[in-house]
Amino acid sequence: MPKQNSDLHGNAPDTSPVVLLLIDVINDFEFEGGAQLLRHALPAAKRIAAFKERCARARIPAVYVNDNFGKWRSDFKRLVSHCLKDDVRGRKVVELLKPGRNDYFVLKPKHSGFFSTTLDLLLKHLGAETLILAGYTGDICILFTANDAFMRDYRLVIPSDCVVSQNPTENKRVLKYMQRVLEADITPSTKIDLVTSTGG
Amino acid sequence: MPKQNSDLHGNAPDTSPVVLLLIDVINDFEFEGGAQLLRHALPAAKRIAAFKERCARARIPAVYVNDNFGKWRSDFKRLVSHCLKDDVRGRKVVELLKPGRNDYFVLKPKHSGFFSTTLDLLLKHLGAETLILAGYTGDICILFTANDAFMRDYRLVIPSDCVVSQNPTENKRVLKYMQRVLEADITPSTKIDLVTSTGG
Amino acid sequence: MPKQNSDLHGNAPDTSPVVLLLIDVINDFEFEGGAQLLRHALPAAKRIAAFKERCARARIPAVYVNDNFGKWRSDFKRLVSHCLKDDVRGRKVVELLKPGRNDYFVLKPKHSGFFSTTLDLLLKHLGAETLILAGYTGDICILFTANDAFMRDYRLVIPSDCVVSQNPTENKRVLKYMQRVLEADITPSTKIDLVTSTGG
Amino acid sequence: MPKQNSDLHGNAPDTSPVVLLLIDVINDFEFEGGAQLLRHALPAAKRIAAFKERCARARIPAVYVNDNFGKWRSDFKRLVSHCLKDDVRGRKVVELLKPGRNDYFVLKPKHSGFFSTTLDLLLKHLGAETLILAGYTGDICILFTANDAFMRDYRLVIPSDCVVSQNPTENKRVLKYMQRVLEADITPSTKIDLVTSTGG
Repeated sequence: MPKQNSDLHGNAPDTSPVVLLLIDVINDFEFEGGAQLLRHALPAAKRIAAFKERCARARIPAVYVNDNFGKWRSDFKRLVSHCLKDDVRGRKVVELLKPGRNDYFVLKPKHSGFFSTTLDLLLKHLGAETLILAGYTGDICILFTANDAFMRDYRLVIPSDCVVSQNPTENKRVLKYMQRVLEADITPSTKIDLVTSTGG
Repeated sequence: MPKQNSDLHGNAPDTSPVVLLLIDVINDFEFEGGAQLLRHALPAAKRIAAFKERCARARIPAVYVNDNFGKWRSDFKRLVSHCLKDDVRGRKVVELLKPGRNDYFVLKPKHSGFFSTTLDLLLKHLGAETLILAGYTGDICILFTANDAFMRDYRLVIPSDCVVSQNPTENKRVLKYMQRVLEADITPSTKIDLVTSTGG
Repeated sequence: MPKQNSDLHGNAPDTSPVVLLLIDVINDFEFEGGAQLLRHALPAAKRIAAFKERCARARIPAVYVNDNFGKWRSDFKRLVSHCLKDDVRGRKVVELLKPGRNDYFVLKPKHSGFFSTTLDLLLKHLGAETLILAGYTGDICILFTANDAFMRDYRLVIPSDCVVSQNPTENKRVLKYMQRVLEADITPSTKIDLVTSTGG
Repeated sequence: MPKQNSDLHGNAPDTSPVVLLLIDVINDFEFEGGAQLLRHALPAAKRIAAFKERCARARIPAVYVNDNFGKWRSDFKRLVSHCLKDDVRGRKVVELLKPGRNDYFVLKPKHSGFFSTTLDLLLKHLGAETLILAGYTGDICILFTANDAFMRDYRLVIPSDCVVSQNPTENKRVLKYMQRVLEADITPSTKIDLVTSTGG
């Protein structure tokens, strides 16, 4: 192939010091405990959708960082389509959080968005310094991804109302953990002043 | 998200000790030097297609390991579609090497298929021990990928008639290099006995 | 250099399906909160030392996975020597847990033992499938390392009496977390039957 | 352990946009072909030593990136000591290139200095943008390391008189390859103006 070292810019990623990561929001909720999780996840999806909209207006790009759910032959669009067209529990969540044509996506095979994916390189090309994390679930994929982001020196914003876990008590605990150990800002999305708090 | 550690097997990758990697074959050849490369690449595409067919019959899975060509928002299917539908130089190559529904794919942002991608994890789940490399170009992306495969202890088969470079002399040299340093088997595809030589 | 692909075995690592990781035990405790942590860490060091001795008899190798404490020019032996010879808080801990000539060591620059280190490759060469984690502190470096081990499909044993954190309540919580999410066995070291529970 | 995210700076790596990597120069040459390689390597060691001296005066830090030669329990200082004290072929090379107290070192288990090591993180903390590569052998560990450096967007300077391979013809070829594909500057060390050509 031709040398493409300097031209990762074909269709050109915009650059932005702040990037919104949407973790596992494209999700059929068809797993054990999925119905229970959905009770918290659907209201959160509305808040995430509103916040994503505000981010877009502030020119903060969104990256869907999503489980491949073991479907190695699948692609992101097929996952979206499965959640929207098949009669699955997660349909309303995915309708709210359907990706747009300017969004990025990264399929992750394991819990952390950084493990065995191209996420870190994408974030470097976007020029990201601060990551805003939202999605499911707080005490698993959000925590794993946040830990990995912290080791890579990203500043973390994790709005407490945009992250849910199976168990609300565990969700509160993990938010406090990420605030204490990872120095994450866990201000609820509605109180975040995107310009001031993110430097965006 | 639910713990998915033991269920990378949703739509289940088959397992196979031998895996065929098709490097940058989904390609519009719309770059400087592309027309010249195409003169070698098109005949090679015919040989690769025939060989891929034989691999499929021997139950050797194929993984497309392909440049994202700087289009971070794109996906593999859109790349294929661009090469088939737009009036591009590479159309005939891509018609010959169009992916099937059982093939895997990995988008790579840089030269090596292992750099900042999920390829190594996919190969581990397939149980791969021997990799067969074919595609473009021998002295860049094939070499980078082969070096990385060698450090990860994969055995290499690189059929000399299924690899081309801009410059045929450089192509021969890099094949000899990979034979000498990486202990690659560079037997032409038509002389490879898939059962014997790959242990498949 | 000569090709060394097949000879990672010079002075030959033994192989073992079970490996003991000692996290940040070579430590001067000369940091804010160090005196407080030491109150829990010193009794734990005695238990870890006894357990390490039992592991050695069961032919389970030990790997010291230790912060470089920002001293990029340093090496592991100098860290040990600093803790033993300079008049530092951690001296007694390090006397108890001084590495022997058969132990391995990996310096880690960040919280997880797997991040930007050779640990995973060393564990592969040892043939490790189960990791026993012990050391400091439970809710930071142990958790980060355990998460990364889990994503790499290692089975985890984390003896509850061999892990301490600044805050005992947080320590209990993180142990329960690792039991629940990472499926870690948190049986206290004194109740671990090394042969049965580790398959060693 | 305490959070050390912001204090990788204990004994503080200096920062420098240009860094000299010395590849596999700490070497006993006690392997098949070692005597033959030494005929080229010893004169090169003199040139590398003189160039390293000039780099030091230009405040360009040196990082020894060295095989662990399969000795997982070993450390860099023991390797140096083995080469200096035991009666080995490489003794004179190592006397010339003995590390000083301001030098950094990274043990690599495989061919590329970046594979399964902390090199990339160290270079980021040094603020490196340009890497100067010198050492042995050109067509194996230098090439593997240079490829990996190129994918990580480092600018490469590879002085043609400070790199040797078993076979001089292969050495010339690989230098031309790195010039053509990796855009490496292969000006001989004696003609490099450290201030101008490295921007240092």
